[in-house]
Amino acid sequence: MTQAARVDLNSDLGEGFGQWTLGDDDALLGVVTSANVACGFHAGDAPTMRRVCARAVASGVAIGAQVGYRDLPGFGRRFIDVEPEALTADVVYQLGALEGFARIAGDRVRYVKPHGALYNAIVHHEEQAAAVVAAVVAYDRTLPVLGLPGSAWLRLAAEAGLTVVHEAFADRAYTPEGTLVSRRLSGAVLHDPAEIAARCVAMAAGEPIRDVEGGELTLQPGSICVHGDTPGAVEIARQVRQALTAAGVELAPFAG
Amino acid sequence: MTQAARVDLNSDLGEGFGQWTLGDDDALLGVVTSANVACGFHAGDAPTMRRVCARAVASGVAIGAQVGYRDLPGFGRRFIDVEPEALTADVVYQLGALEGFARIAGDRVRYVKPHGALYNAIVHHEEQAAAVVAAVVAYDRTLPVLGLPGSAWLRLAAEAGLTVVHEAFADRAYTPEGTLVSRRLSGAVLHDPAEIAARCVAMAAGEPIRDVEGGELTLQPGSICVHGDTPGAVEIARQVRQALTAAGVELAPFAG
Amino acid sequence: MTQAARVDLNSDLGEGFGQWTLGDDDALLGVVTSANVACGFHAGDAPTMRRVCARAVASGVAIGAQVGYRDLPGFGRRFIDVEPEALTADVVYQLGALEGFARIAGDRVRYVKPHGALYNAIVHHEEQAAAVVAAVVAYDRTLPVLGLPGSAWLRLAAEAGLTVVHEAFADRAYTPEGTLVSRRLSGAVLHDPAEIAARCVAMAAGEPIRDVEGGELTLQPGSICVHGDTPGAVEIARQVRQALTAAGVELAPFAG
Amino acid sequence: MTQAARVDLNSDLGEGFGQWTLGDDDALLGVVTSANVACGFHAGDAPTMRRVCARAVASGVAIGAQVGYRDLPGFGRRFIDVEPEALTADVVYQLGALEGFARIAGDRVRYVKPHGALYNAIVHHEEQAAAVVAAVVAYDRTLPVLGLPGSAWLRLAAEAGLTVVHEAFADRAYTPEGTLVSRRLSGAVLHDPAEIAARCVAMAAGEPIRDVEGGELTLQPGSICVHGDTPGAVEIARQVRQALTAAGVELAPFAG
Repeated sequence: MTQAARVDLNSDLGEGFGQWTLGDDDALLGVVTSANVACGFHAGDAPTMRRVCARAVASGVAIGAQVGYRDLPGFGRRFIDVEPEALTADVVYQLGALEGFARIAGDRVRYVKPHGALYNAIVHHEEQAAAVVAAVVAYDRTLPVLGLPGSAWLRLAAEAGLTVVHEAFADRAYTPEGTLVSRRLSGAVLHDPAEIAARCVAMAAGEPIRDVEGGELTLQPGSICVHGDTPGAVEIARQVRQALTAAGVELAPFAG
Repeated sequence: MTQAARVDLNSDLGEGFGQWTLGDDDALLGVVTSANVACGFHAGDAPTMRRVCARAVASGVAIGAQVGYRDLPGFGRRFIDVEPEALTADVVYQLGALEGFARIAGDRVRYVKPHGALYNAIVHHEEQAAAVVAAVVAYDRTLPVLGLPGSAWLRLAAEAGLTVVHEAFADRAYTPEGTLVSRRLSGAVLHDPAEIAARCVAMAAGEPIRDVEGGELTLQPGSICVHGDTPGAVEIARQVRQALTAAGVELAPFAG
Repeated sequence: MTQAARVDLNSDLGEGFGQWTLGDDDALLGVVTSANVACGFHAGDAPTMRRVCARAVASGVAIGAQVGYRDLPGFGRRFIDVEPEALTADVVYQLGALEGFARIAGDRVRYVKPHGALYNAIVHHEEQAAAVVAAVVAYDRTLPVLGLPGSAWLRLAAEAGLTVVHEAFADRAYTPEGTLVSRRLSGAVLHDPAEIAARCVAMAAGEPIRDVEGGELTLQPGSICVHGDTPGAVEIARQVRQALTAAGVELAPFAG
Repeated sequence: MTQAARVDLNSDLGEGFGQWTLGDDDALLGVVTSANVACGFHAGDAPTMRRVCARAVASGVAIGAQVGYRDLPGFGRRFIDVEPEALTADVVYQLGALEGFARIAGDRVRYVKPHGALYNAIVHHEEQAAAVVAAVVAYDRTLPVLGLPGSAWLRLAAEAGLTVVHEAFADRAYTPEGTLVSRRLSGAVLHDPAEIAARCVAMAAGEPIRDVEGGELTLQPGSICVHGDTPGAVEIARQVRQALTAAGVELAPFAG
């Protein structure tokens, strides 16, 4: 491994709403380098957004806009057939709202990562992918966007001149083609912290990992996504960070 | 009347939501010089905000943030006993969201005017008034704020170093002390377009109007509020503008 | 035409929300025999629902539950990929909420008609169609359901033992197969009040109408849907009623 | 203590929303005899309501409507100055919605208990108290209502002919006059499980407890409220139940 190995760890934060909390934001801010902050459409009320942004800035964690469908009861996990023009406006609304909190925390929004069903939809849904791209282009074409390699989202973003960043998932199995194994199949999600950490070290170093069929697969992600919505997930994220640090990988935001 | 007479006309815009419309935004944009754009908490979905901001910029109308309580079913017209910290965050959220649309329209948010029950509450409610002031100070202390002379809102804003702008109402009767006659009293709202227009010309020129008891009252508003939520209201607003123009009063945004 | 000719006219009512109104509920209550009352998920706040139910009962109009996706910003017109179990619960929630207002108005909910994107989805979407059927079966299996002939919705409802009622549209063109001409094609929507009224008389009498290709098509709807969301629509609905009455067709709710 | 001693234990249930959970509903259903089920306005989405109602019926726990202000971001804990007519409609809406789930679970709504800021407001706010009473009277005048002795809510409910049930709080200190010690004062909330359980046994037996100044105070509640929103709270609720059972107090719903 070269000394230059460097990677970003991202995770979803600020996904509570009012009285309701989800995940351990404070713990995650000690682990990740980029925070995908919910912007109020699938989760995240204004006081939560303010608090998370302030703490992210205090922790040196980059603030990203985790934009989603407008669907609090469904937590943004249900596809909505929004008209592209409305979707563009919904994304701009979320970007601006988060920007206000980033600004008063002394920073600004550094990148965009779609959430949940929107993330999944724009892997293939060209119109919605284009609508989200249009929002970023209109709002700030210097903002990098985070997503799945091979998605319509990243393809259209690149065509529009945006900086695209490939994301890998710490705890997901991959096919030989480099796509995610469907969650409906057994073995899709990894649970062994040591294995997950080792894979992340390999990814960060540009070395191959094992795909689901046992072959070698080399991913070179600009960011690795870890989860924090359960106590076990936070513990895994901590181990990933420790393993990366122990291996000499520099952890730093991809955006900034 | 001196040649320098100049005034701003403001009105509430963008107060539809999704399928529902309210008022005639396009007509008003041909009348006013400042648009109090709803930010999504009492009215105003993202596509509406985007459209209104684009048209305001095209019409040379200044964009102001019409911030309110989070209450779509009540249209922001019901007092909510929000904690000050939450209210501050709610206002920042709305400011940021509108800023996104102002930005992509090629401009920025130029001022802040609270809406409905929040407007009324912070005439006297010190904690909530301070909370809204805190939001503006945190977000952008160069933003002027619009409100009622004598209100806690404007007093605290001035103490915090914000630029305060006094607002008068085109169609409301005033007491000898310069406060609004309660809507519960007859004669509180004026309906004669010619009378309303003449009062606006007097106000803009720094000349006295008649108070509700027949005495003279000199208001020197930085902005005059007109309404547009009924066809009759739009027609009155048009007559106000024509009368001001005919009298040689310059119409221009107070902020910009 | 036999003397026994009898038909129901249904229309969407109560589709305002808070400060926002849509359509002329009072005018429609003088025209239709069945009111599809919005239940709060796509439109309809509680005071509106109460008022519409009270007036429907006073007018002898049957109250039906117009159930939709939970999507106020989209007015229920966007497909949402809701899990079937959640959809069943959402429909029961809406049925119960409307029942409260029907009850205090001295009546009860008489039928169910899905709204907007849900109406369209369950023409083909088997899982969602089954989920709505499951809600009606669980809530009250004596409730008739209204829908499009040939839809999965009516087929599954019939299989579950529910009473199904076929609906025709007063102002829509039909294919020779009896399906609606897509709104994307010209001629899909009829605008001539006299023609629309004459078609409704024919439908009610069991006589054929002209399909879009000029052939004869006999529909025997249990209910004809008229619109009221524009002044012109209300006027057409009035003419339909007058024509039916003049032709000796009895107008009466299909459910009761 | 007489053998006839009998009391009801009530607690708030179903206060999650979508992806978010709050409290341990299943644990509480093994403790209480009456479940105050959130109806969707301050908490409680449709699938949650359905599940809680089904489990309550399976556990022999009475279903009560926990009605609140329409305020998900504030969890119903902020006073809203709703017009009385709108409040009446909002309460009927919630009652009907919950009734649907009670019905499909094989039971019906058995009582009404206001939530949070509404509970507190109608201790003194005559118009809102009357509005909630009007909702219950209109909806079903046989429904008992639960509340604070001495409140406008219970006084007006009694005057309207409703059955009123006095509620005591297991973990709250009382003044010599029988009112709750303000939460702003130290000692307002009790934390010792043994002490709390002993007080509940005394209350249920009609024996005096110690007020905050050391005197004796006899409360004769029809129902005792326990909490379940933290693991500690559930454990206290369990100890209350065990102590009551050990003391020979019969636990049974007050409504049924």
